Amino acid sequence: MEPKLEGNLIIIGGAEDKEGEKKILKEVCNKLDKKNDELVIATVATELPLEVGREYLKIFRNLGVKKISLLDIQERKDALEENNINMLKAASIVFFTGGDQLRITSLLGGTPLYKIIKEIYEKGCIFVGTSAGASVMSDTMIVSGLNDDSPKKNTIKMAPGLGLIKDVIIDQHFAQRGRIGRLLCAIAENPECLGIGIDEDTSIEVSDKGFFKTIGSGAVYVLDGSTITYTNVSEQHPEEMLSIFDIKMHVLKNNDRFDLTTRQPFKIEEEKNEDN
Amino acid sequence: MEPKLEGNLIIIGGAEDKEGEKKILKEVCNKLDKKNDELVIATVATELPLEVGREYLKIFRNLGVKKISLLDIQERKDALEENNINMLKAASIVFFTGGDQLRITSLLGGTPLYKIIKEIYEKGCIFVGTSAGASVMSDTMIVSGLNDDSPKKNTIKMAPGLGLIKDVIIDQHFAQRGRIGRLLCAIAENPECLGIGIDEDTSIEVSDKGFFKTIGSGAVYVLDGSTITYTNVSEQHPEEMLSIFDIKMHVLKNNDRFDLTTRQPFKIEEEKNEDN
Repeated sequence: MEPKLEGNLIIIGGAEDKEGEKKILKEVCNKLDKKNDELVIATVATELPLEVGREYLKIFRNLGVKKISLLDIQERKDALEENNINMLKAASIVFFTGGDQLRITSLLGGTPLYKIIKEIYEKGCIFVGTSAGASVMSDTMIVSGLNDDSPKKNTIKMAPGLGLIKDVIIDQHFAQRGRIGRLLCAIAENPECLGIGIDEDTSIEVSDKGFFKTIGSGAVYVLDGSTITYTNVSEQHPEEMLSIFDIKMHVLKNNDRFDLTTRQPFKIEEEKNEDN
Repeated sequence: MEPKLEGNLIIIGGAEDKEGEKKILKEVCNKLDKKNDELVIATVATELPLEVGREYLKIFRNLGVKKISLLDIQERKDALEENNINMLKAASIVFFTGGDQLRITSLLGGTPLYKIIKEIYEKGCIFVGTSAGASVMSDTMIVSGLNDDSPKKNTIKMAPGLGLIKDVIIDQHFAQRGRIGRLLCAIAENPECLGIGIDEDTSIEVSDKGFFKTIGSGAVYVLDGSTITYTNVSEQHPEEMLSIFDIKMHVLKNNDRFDLTTRQPFKIEEEKNEDN
C-alpha cells in the first residue's frame, strides 16, 4: 500500500502578529469554513492555559470563526476524558500554542487523545503549531539547546515529537534567538533530517503534495545536511565544538516554496506581486 | 610580475581570552622574537585608547614581549606625525584593538600612515585585529547591521576597509550576536566574496600560502555564495527580506584549515590530538 500523503500543517516560528495585519492567523482562518468548522485551541504546552487560550479565542473570534473550543490538558488523566476526545474528533483545525514542547508530548504521549490526534490528522484535520507547538510537529524535536552560540557537542537535548511531519527537525524564534548553532548540531547528528529554522512571525504551510510555502514577515532557513562531506559529531571529546564541512543552506522569504522530496526551493513567478 | 602573496594576518572575532589560557594572544606572541621584535598596539578604533592600550600592554608584557609601543591616533593629524610613522616602520606585529571599524579607516585613510601600513604588510609585518580590528582587514567591511535578525535588504552598511585580505568579508562576535543574517546580506550582494564569521575567543590565522587555520574556543563560519542559484537581492522592494537559494556553509573549529583559493575546508590529521 502506498504510504498516505501527509495532511496539511501550518508551523509558526512563534510571536506571530496578533495585533496588526495578523497575516499568519488570517491564513489559518482561511483554511476553515468559519461558520461551520470547529477550531480547537490546544493549550497543553503552557502553564497559563487560561490566559493563552483566551487570547487566541478572542483573536479567532474577531477573525470571524464561530466554533472555537479550548483543549486544556494539565494532567495526563485529562487526556483520557471523553469530552476532550470528542472535542478533537469534531475538530477541523487544531492549534497548538507555545509553552514547553515537552509538556505536550509528556502529557499526551501514549494516551487515547494522542491516538485521536494521529487519526484525525490522517483524515485531513489541519494542525497548526506556534513556538513549542511548532517544534513538537516533527518525529524528533529539539527540547533545549544554546541560543546565540555555535554548535557544540552534548549541548542539545532532543526527544520524540508528535510525528506529524517526517524527516525534518523544526526550530523556532530562529534568527531572533540565534539558533542556527543548535539546529546545525541536530542536523549534523542525522543529516537525513532536513533542518527548518523558522523566524518569529513567520510560518511554513506544508501541503500534502510534499512541499511547503513560507508565509510571514521573517525568514525560513533550510539546512540540508545531505551534502556534508565531514563532521566530527561522532568522534570522541564530548565537549568539543563541531566541525561541519559543505552543508547546504537556503534562506526563504514570504511566498518562497520548498520541495521536501527533491530538497529544492522554488518560486511561483505569478505570485511575485504578492511578495511581502 | 607575479602578484605578491598576502602576508600573515591573525583575525580575531573579539572577546579573546585575556585572563585564562590566553590561547590566541599567546599564538600572537609566538609569531615574535619576544626579545627583539617590536609589537605595536594600535588603539585607533577605540575612544578609550589609554584603558584599552594599557590592558593589552600588560598582557603582552606578562607574555614576555619586551618591545611594545602604543600607537594612539585620535585625529587625522596624528597620522602625519613622524614618530608614529617611525613606530610603524619598526614594527614586526601591529595589533588593532576593538572599537569602531569606521574610526580606523576614517582616521587613517589617505594619510602617510596608511601607506606605511600597506608597505610594511607587503614586507612581511604581521597584522592582528580583534573585533573592529578584525572587520577592517578586508577590502570591504561591514560597518553595521542587525544582530539576531534575518537578512533584509538595506539594513547593512558597508565601507572600504584596510584591504589587507582580498575577496572576503569578515564579521565578528558572530554566534554570540546572531550575525549570520547580516553576513548573508553582504555575501548575497557579491558572492565573489567569501563570508567569514568569527566567534568570540576565536581567530583565523591567514598564511601567505592562501589558507587559514582556525584557533580558539568557538567556531568560524564560512559562507560560500558561489553556489547561489537565486537571490532577490538586486530586485525592487528595498525593504523586503532576502531569498537566498543554495548557499554553501562550513563550520570550522580549532585547528580546522580552509583553502581560500579552492574554497575548501580541510583537516591536518597529525594534529588531531591538539584539538581543543
